[in-house]
Amino acid sequence: MNNFIFHVPTKVYFGKDEHKNLSEIMKSFGTNVLLVYGSGSIKKSGLYESVMAQLNEKNMYELANVAANPRLESVVEGVTLCRNNNIDVILAIGGGSVCDCSKAIAGATYFDGDAWDMIMDPISLNKAVPIVSITTLSGTGSEMNCTGVITNQEINDKRGFRHPLLFPVVSILDPTLTYTLPKNQTAAGCADILSHLFEIYFNRVEGAYVQEELCHSFMKTVFKYSPVVMDKPDDYEARSNLMWAATLTLNSLAGSGFAQGWSCHAMQHVLGAFYNNTHGVGLAILTPAWMRYILDETTVSRFVKYGVHVLGIDSNKEDFEIANEAIQMTQDFFVNVLEIPSTLHEVGIDDTRFEEMAKKAIQSKNGVIKGFKTLYEQDVVNIYNICK
Amino acid sequence: MNNFIFHVPTKVYFGKDEHKNLSEIMKSFGTNVLLVYGSGSIKKSGLYESVMAQLNEKNMYELANVAANPRLESVVEGVTLCRNNNIDVILAIGGGSVCDCSKAIAGATYFDGDAWDMIMDPISLNKAVPIVSITTLSGTGSEMNCTGVITNQEINDKRGFRHPLLFPVVSILDPTLTYTLPKNQTAAGCADILSHLFEIYFNRVEGAYVQEELCHSFMKTVFKYSPVVMDKPDDYEARSNLMWAATLTLNSLAGSGFAQGWSCHAMQHVLGAFYNNTHGVGLAILTPAWMRYILDETTVSRFVKYGVHVLGIDSNKEDFEIANEAIQMTQDFFVNVLEIPSTLHEVGIDDTRFEEMAKKAIQSKNGVIKGFKTLYEQDVVNIYNICK
Repeated sequence: MNNFIFHVPTKVYFGKDEHKNLSEIMKSFGTNVLLVYGSGSIKKSGLYESVMAQLNEKNMYELANVAANPRLESVVEGVTLCRNNNIDVILAIGGGSVCDCSKAIAGATYFDGDAWDMIMDPISLNKAVPIVSITTLSGTGSEMNCTGVITNQEINDKRGFRHPLLFPVVSILDPTLTYTLPKNQTAAGCADILSHLFEIYFNRVEGAYVQEELCHSFMKTVFKYSPVVMDKPDDYEARSNLMWAATLTLNSLAGSGFAQGWSCHAMQHVLGAFYNNTHGVGLAILTPAWMRYILDETTVSRFVKYGVHVLGIDSNKEDFEIANEAIQMTQDFFVNVLEIPSTLHEVGIDDTRFEEMAKKAIQSKNGVIKGFKTLYEQDVVNIYNICK
Repeated sequence: MNNFIFHVPTKVYFGKDEHKNLSEIMKSFGTNVLLVYGSGSIKKSGLYESVMAQLNEKNMYELANVAANPRLESVVEGVTLCRNNNIDVILAIGGGSVCDCSKAIAGATYFDGDAWDMIMDPISLNKAVPIVSITTLSGTGSEMNCTGVITNQEINDKRGFRHPLLFPVVSILDPTLTYTLPKNQTAAGCADILSHLFEIYFNRVEGAYVQEELCHSFMKTVFKYSPVVMDKPDDYEARSNLMWAATLTLNSLAGSGFAQGWSCHAMQHVLGAFYNNTHGVGLAILTPAWMRYILDETTVSRFVKYGVHVLGIDSNKEDFEIANEAIQMTQDFFVNVLEIPSTLHEVGIDDTRFEEMAKKAIQSKNGVIKGFKTLYEQDVVNIYNICK
């Protein structure tokens, strides 16, 4: 087990109807509120109305239309709103994109420089606007961590950033708010959780048994409850377990003590920047290909552990047989249970820019992806090609 | 799954040699430090010297000899030291007793009333001395929660208290500091972790799969690594996994979403108040008896889950067969692996005060122990009698 620092100060209100406590929760946060949200599904669901009624004594400002891969333009617009209106608190209502965008705004508002510079190098941040979030899509875990990802379309770049000041102060996780999600978004969220777990779990650190067990637990949760929510979107047991597993997966609990590479995310972020594809869908396409590409004598044992402890494959089988079966089961889960395409072609991405994107993916990791297995530019091209 | 609030702001530094960062960590906490510790093992191990060298620019005050079941007298003494010397931060070095005592001091220093009144009803606290802790014994999880237990010998009472202001601000968890523990303390710590997990896990809330899986993970960690540390006290992998499992077990992660009864703790706290027995040892004696006493048609399914998922008992067996086998394996683990006595008689407790203690245990829970199965006064007497 590696040494680590664990510090997750976000206060979580979890459970049915918890969003109805918003008025009470917001009392201590001042009067000027910037409400950040996405495409407007919160208006259809009635959540917008409930929020506005609960906060009728506040001065409400709004930043709407935050995109699924949140863009720098939204961040810049949000910063202007914060600065011009002395915003006391950002209320982020949505999935990871809205929360990520809110974090970038929260930091950039007090950053001496432009917003993209903050995203590229947030280390000098010493103040941020506090964030309260209400999660309406489980997946990213952004509600309980201090990281975000922003797309700069002008230069086809998508970058992650993190700073301890950017943890939401409070996050409200009400599983019932995810009942009305479109099926493809539910699926992308489930794929996203699983992808995070793979990025965390597939590493070479030995002796971190607790962390391995945590990953197994959350993986089993996704495999158990994804078919349920795909079939019955208002199943509280399924929605609540998926929601809590998503949050705990990416609040650094599952990964502290491991060395993490985030190989597939590096490759997907570039796809997102070039083609604006859905994050979780891209990951679901790339991950099985990446698994097959890196499987060898040095990596097989972790695949065996995954296959036996999470997927229930017979441990008496030969190692590579277990590993290959586990990878195939993973891909089958994405395709058959989550109904996600298995090729880039199916989501409108062809091979014309594979080299260009591979270069960018490698650049974003300072020249090499140091994951479970080290990947160079040509490796990334090869993996994209497997996904064609 | 029940609704819950999850908020654990303690910053944890985990891993080998992390205690050497103390000087850096303490920089932001002012100059007047109250060092709280126990019997002096930190002097034998060299930790005391290292701490003093690192904090040579601070004004150090000391409260030593905090007992294994920390007493009100120590709290009162600590409060006087804090008030008289304008203490800026309490540095708690030890196991749960030292940390619990430090929390009581931290709260009572700013409490308008005497220390026992604060312990009985801390709700009005609005300020506390910040606590930095260095854990030298894994078990209680006190290093990452806001609860404590104090014994008032004058009235044979032992009470728990909690307040959000009493989380340690920073906790340093360095597994190597537990290498020098006497074998019986290591064993009591392992028993303590497992007892906490049982108190959390055995409840009637359905559909909290993530929480069940977390409990299974931490239970498996204890079963896997306890034999290792009993045999080889300086095994880093075993010590680190036990330490992290202990902390996560009682920082509210494993239990949030469950309804918890803490039945065995209610019964053990009274034993501790009357006989000053070792907490983890008392729990290891009481727990199998409690399990046998409450096993019936309404509780058996959770025992089956425990037996199958944690202990690997064949799921094809009949339910009560699995449950009884699981209970027997649990008792065997306490006796054979942890080398803990299986009767109260062996730890010097006879049946002369069972009725008196049962009354007290029930009183401490406002008249009834609402656990996995409700216990009244006579039930507690009966369980004590099974343990004779």
